[in-house]
Amino acid sequence: MRRSPAWIPVPPGSPFPLVNLPFGIGAAPGDEPSVYVAVGDHALGLATVAAAGLLEDLGVAPEVFQHDSLNPYLAAGRSTGARLRARLIEILTDPTLADRLADAVVPRDDLTLGVPVEVGDYVDFYSSIHHATNLGRLFRPDDDPLPANWRHLPAGYHGRSGTLVPSGTPITRPRGLRLVDGQPAFGPTEALDLELEVGFVIGAPSSVGTPVSTADASDHIAGLCLVNDWSARDVQAYEYVPLGPFVGKSFATSVSPWLVSLDALEPYRTAAPRQDPPVADHLRSTRDWAFDLRLQVLLESEAMRAAGMEPVRISCVGFADMYWTPDQQLAHATANGASVRSGDLFASGTVSGPTRGSEGSLIEATWRGECPLELPTGETRAFLADGDRVILEGWAGGDHRPLIGLGQVSGTIGGSI
Amino acid sequence: MRRSPAWIPVPPGSPFPLVNLPFGIGAAPGDEPSVYVAVGDHALGLATVAAAGLLEDLGVAPEVFQHDSLNPYLAAGRSTGARLRARLIEILTDPTLADRLADAVVPRDDLTLGVPVEVGDYVDFYSSIHHATNLGRLFRPDDDPLPANWRHLPAGYHGRSGTLVPSGTPITRPRGLRLVDGQPAFGPTEALDLELEVGFVIGAPSSVGTPVSTADASDHIAGLCLVNDWSARDVQAYEYVPLGPFVGKSFATSVSPWLVSLDALEPYRTAAPRQDPPVADHLRSTRDWAFDLRLQVLLESEAMRAAGMEPVRISCVGFADMYWTPDQQLAHATANGASVRSGDLFASGTVSGPTRGSEGSLIEATWRGECPLELPTGETRAFLADGDRVILEGWAGGDHRPLIGLGQVSGTIGGSI
Repeated sequence: MRRSPAWIPVPPGSPFPLVNLPFGIGAAPGDEPSVYVAVGDHALGLATVAAAGLLEDLGVAPEVFQHDSLNPYLAAGRSTGARLRARLIEILTDPTLADRLADAVVPRDDLTLGVPVEVGDYVDFYSSIHHATNLGRLFRPDDDPLPANWRHLPAGYHGRSGTLVPSGTPITRPRGLRLVDGQPAFGPTEALDLELEVGFVIGAPSSVGTPVSTADASDHIAGLCLVNDWSARDVQAYEYVPLGPFVGKSFATSVSPWLVSLDALEPYRTAAPRQDPPVADHLRSTRDWAFDLRLQVLLESEAMRAAGMEPVRISCVGFADMYWTPDQQLAHATANGASVRSGDLFASGTVSGPTRGSEGSLIEATWRGECPLELPTGETRAFLADGDRVILEGWAGGDHRPLIGLGQVSGTIGGSI
Repeated sequence: MRRSPAWIPVPPGSPFPLVNLPFGIGAAPGDEPSVYVAVGDHALGLATVAAAGLLEDLGVAPEVFQHDSLNPYLAAGRSTGARLRARLIEILTDPTLADRLADAVVPRDDLTLGVPVEVGDYVDFYSSIHHATNLGRLFRPDDDPLPANWRHLPAGYHGRSGTLVPSGTPITRPRGLRLVDGQPAFGPTEALDLELEVGFVIGAPSSVGTPVSTADASDHIAGLCLVNDWSARDVQAYEYVPLGPFVGKSFATSVSPWLVSLDALEPYRTAAPRQDPPVADHLRSTRDWAFDLRLQVLLESEAMRAAGMEPVRISCVGFADMYWTPDQQLAHATANGASVRSGDLFASGTVSGPTRGSEGSLIEATWRGECPLELPTGETRAFLADGDRVILEGWAGGDHRPLIGLGQVSGTIGGSI
């Protein structure tokens, strides 16, 4: 089926064609934050579209589009989201509406974009077998790299929701206790790292005492975004036994601005790797929950910026071979009766592949600094230096399928506190 | 100084005399939740007191008392709280106001009490040396019971804020993966436990990138409450390496309804035990941050209830010898630049003493079931059984100091999901 083009132009290769329509929270100059949908290099303000009476009969009150988070919209659930998506495609392909909605369209670059959801609880998993194996080798060289439980449950922990920050927020180098010459000493981390992750966000909430089965996961997962779980490896290594990561991670986690719906990602579902040994019944997927996404990490040093150089790609990895998938992660997190709320964020854990160049963190890519990265300026990196800018990107499609993207999440290391 | 008695009667031994004045969120029958202060067996509705024009010129808008959490009030900061507290003591000792405020007074038992704050982030520490030593012996019998980092930092992790529940909420026995005959198997926990803890709540928020020093902790800590961090020990034991506790804890955490201010607790400050080796500079306390509280755990089985028996005390422990104190916990959690928000909850970790009968959890009291507790009915308990009701209590004072209390937090095990 050939679809008429949108009246908002979509440049070739844009991550945000008409079949994507990711939702975000933006503030145009002088305006309060509200709900936008990205189309090409522009964004459509849904508060204005709703005020024009074009979003009626969808089961969602117009006020939700004036909100400073997607939570009220997400709480309306998946089918409302699908209806709204269909309506927006109608609107954007009806050229007679272009003039009427001219005020609703803003260049994306003019928007100040926030974290799209107000996150009640943020959970971070550890679901790439390549990453878990690499970290096991680095942190516990004398043990099996994979903990005994790793293939039986999607290991995860709660992160700090209060320090989730929007893309572009400067990341201050944290201080903490780490071993220096074998003794604990307090100071700025010397091992500041990134973690390339994909997060999923909860739409319809669940109730306490009612687990979300893998079969029902689609009713509660609204969409995907990119997450950079900044990590101070030396602080983390010193603190993590026995309660897991805490201040080595809690200083900042960056979240991409555009939430890409499961509906948009439907064509890119694919089978996850076979799990061996078989997992417990309640963790068994009932359909394909891997997503055929490509992810990459770009790095730009201060010297590169000064020389007018483009950011350099330091990693490229597929998301489809994650060992544990979102349905399993959600089923695990709720099997004990815990509830989820609209806007809760669950991140995949670092996405790493099996080969050189597909590592989702510097500690893996440089093997804790043993093999530093070389930048085009001749600089080397074991970990992040002040002034470094990190950009994560993700996209799906190509070949015979439309190209859609998760966009970017970026952050620049902004000195020590 | 002799203070005139309050016109709301305070029965002898009440945890809530005029010098306590803890704040909570209650709903009288047919009313929306709003802010109350507890006095004896009654509570004073501050929305009504504010509507009578008696809470003006305090730097706090009357609307904050109509809110369903203490967060807006707490955000106003410590000095506002102190002024409000002084005003309330004036009001409650002015007998001419008794008639005018008659509508503001309700029997405490008539109120439906909530978790007093909306918790953005919930952090749980591990700050009792006796508890950490006991758990180390139980979980890691072949290692030093205290992890190498334990005396150098107040170990903590983030818990799930979305499953914090008010006192009285039934606790459903969670299911999870745990080892059965050495193999992971999914089912209801067979090791459901309580954890006796004291939490502190954030008043004035802090900013990203600005650590809260131990000296400034008083500006950000509003008060204390009781916390029962329910734990599924078998699930926890199987999952906790390497990311710490997750679904073994996240099903429910009970919080007491009345937040006791630091001002009320001022007379009960005392010196914490000496820390050896000395801690890093940023963790050094600048004043006494231990609190001379007694805590106890009461248990009542279904059979005891049926027989009309009173709950039996299974543990009694002092809070004053916690190794790490709230100022140090807050300094540690923010030294990396992480911010705190009004309403954030930081729990002490299980409070256990050095002697038999002072354990803050059943796994310690029964040594993982090796020495079961005996109840007055002749029943025994290794861990909690369905129908068991657990009550935590805490209080300060006695002798020449006034008796004030944290009140209670309770929960009954309500069957499996």
